[in-house]
Amino acid sequence: MENSTPKFIRSSHLKSDMAGVIMLPISKVPVVKTTDTISEIEKNLLKKIENLDTINYIYIVDSEQKLKGVISIKEIFLKSKETVVSEIMDRKLVRVRLRTDQERVALLAVKYNLKAIPVVDKTEKLLGVVSSDIILGILYKEATEDILRLAGVERFNENILDITKQPSRIIILARLPWLLVGLTGGIFAAKILGFFETTLEAQIIFAFFIPVMLYMANAVAIQSQTIFIRSLTLNPELKTTTYFSKEIKIGGFIALVCALLFTLISFFWQTSPFIGVILGLSMFISTTWAVALSIIIPWLLRSFKKDPAIGSGPFSTIANDISTLIIYFSIVSLMTKFFSI
Amino acid sequence: MENSTPKFIRSSHLKSDMAGVIMLPISKVPVVKTTDTISEIEKNLLKKIENLDTINYIYIVDSEQKLKGVISIKEIFLKSKETVVSEIMDRKLVRVRLRTDQERVALLAVKYNLKAIPVVDKTEKLLGVVSSDIILGILYKEATEDILRLAGVERFNENILDITKQPSRIIILARLPWLLVGLTGGIFAAKILGFFETTLEAQIIFAFFIPVMLYMANAVAIQSQTIFIRSLTLNPELKTTTYFSKEIKIGGFIALVCALLFTLISFFWQTSPFIGVILGLSMFISTTWAVALSIIIPWLLRSFKKDPAIGSGPFSTIANDISTLIIYFSIVSLMTKFFSI
Repeated sequence: MENSTPKFIRSSHLKSDMAGVIMLPISKVPVVKTTDTISEIEKNLLKKIENLDTINYIYIVDSEQKLKGVISIKEIFLKSKETVVSEIMDRKLVRVRLRTDQERVALLAVKYNLKAIPVVDKTEKLLGVVSSDIILGILYKEATEDILRLAGVERFNENILDITKQPSRIIILARLPWLLVGLTGGIFAAKILGFFETTLEAQIIFAFFIPVMLYMANAVAIQSQTIFIRSLTLNPELKTTTYFSKEIKIGGFIALVCALLFTLISFFWQTSPFIGVILGLSMFISTTWAVALSIIIPWLLRSFKKDPAIGSGPFSTIANDISTLIIYFSIVSLMTKFFSI
Repeated sequence: MENSTPKFIRSSHLKSDMAGVIMLPISKVPVVKTTDTISEIEKNLLKKIENLDTINYIYIVDSEQKLKGVISIKEIFLKSKETVVSEIMDRKLVRVRLRTDQERVALLAVKYNLKAIPVVDKTEKLLGVVSSDIILGILYKEATEDILRLAGVERFNENILDITKQPSRIIILARLPWLLVGLTGGIFAAKILGFFETTLEAQIIFAFFIPVMLYMANAVAIQSQTIFIRSLTLNPELKTTTYFSKEIKIGGFIALVCALLFTLISFFWQTSPFIGVILGLSMFISTTWAVALSIIIPWLLRSFKKDPAIGSGPFSTIANDISTLIIYFSIVSLMTKFFSI
């Protein structure tokens, strides 16, 4: 297969998750001319068959190797031998480019229920084919990696099933890095809370709501981020600004509902009504900010040509925890002074 | 396809994620007898070809319909017409049962690089075939659902790409439920902290470490749980007790390392060395407990025939937050009294 990869593909700096890298080269795929008859196709197919990887579809190209149509192997057997292929081929083609992301190729295969998708260049010249079993293998590995990354498990290329068979030492090394980053973040968070010691001592009640503030900011942010990162992979033309403003609106609305509910509950629970207002306001601002952060971080990573998913999971949690605490206690500090509670 | 599904399959209470439901019935798959010659196969194949869904593999059965071997369509074209198929067929078969989970079917297809996997009953009788394009569609949907569920987004059957095109109202309804559960959990957590008000007022320093305690318990637990839930799906014979004890050992070790580091840092930071010890001990116990919980919850769900993944994500976070706070402040309360700090 090495030798059959055209030189321009090897030298074109394709990334390993692009269609051009995972496709089968033309030599492994049934390709015929538009002028061929069914009997000519049968003869040529028999000669080549040992080298073919998949024979579900036969691709039809013109004299310049431009992809013109496709026909399923079944039809070859059903039509009369004299039929010229261009008369019966399907001209509605689903095709991708060398640089199309493999997850997008998978999405197209799923959407149109295809067993293979052809890869073409700008001039529609056929370069190769990505078959469904290849997509399956890649997708499987990628889904597993995405889920593990979201859970803060790093450096695993092996299959998830093998993890249970790995020695404990290897598993610990894969899990510890993000935990140590989190521990450092936690110490930093404690330092920040230290600055608000006087406020906290005067109104210990605000300490009780630290868990729910952290929970809400993180929960809303992980929803935004997960949807954003996946949309980004599947839809490369996604306009980040449009997406961002919609997400901020949705995130802001959710934050507002939770904040209002919270204010209401706190009103009935607490003696001072101001405490409920402070809690609700803090929740609204910190949660909306967390949503913004959860989109800005993967967007920045993508601008620097890094995988947006790196910024997900543990990294996001730490960033949200610290910013939530700063926002929450700044508001508490300001408001309690202002209203002299 | 409805009509070609054998009655025993329709009445066998198969769940939608089992091989028996996603497989193609035998009528859509090329099946031949062990005694057939290549020329007979070619003739029969041509007659049936319009109904066949995939022709990558031809399955070979004996007179009792028991699966005996498989041959690729390529070989049919390469061998002489008089060859009897049983002489050249591949007898090493990868096969699954009606009740095999679809993710396990996918794993086998990926592992052995197969374009289709046959489904047999207890007596090895061929019932149907799961093809790679079907696995691909299912796997794609499932991976997306798993990731969204981990992020606390519910009730989405649509493709993730469509989410960005959905009206905001629909997205909010999919996201709000878990957030409201979390909000309720947070109010409950605040109530619990209220019980420890005296302790907290005497030693406000312990409030500063609430974020890192919550972070660590959740971070270690989500790692354990993600690996456990995926292993459970892929390896139905997984012995939960063995897995559990290994995971507790690993989780405990990680907790110990973090607790020791934490104790060390606290020693240098705080005036009283006891505070460091209390923090480290609390972190060790609450984190190990969170690991146990993260395995017990999906294991219980599975025992009650529910999808273990329901217990992941937001549900787990709330359970961990509350138990961590109880453990942390019980230890703080007991230890500060005991050592009269």
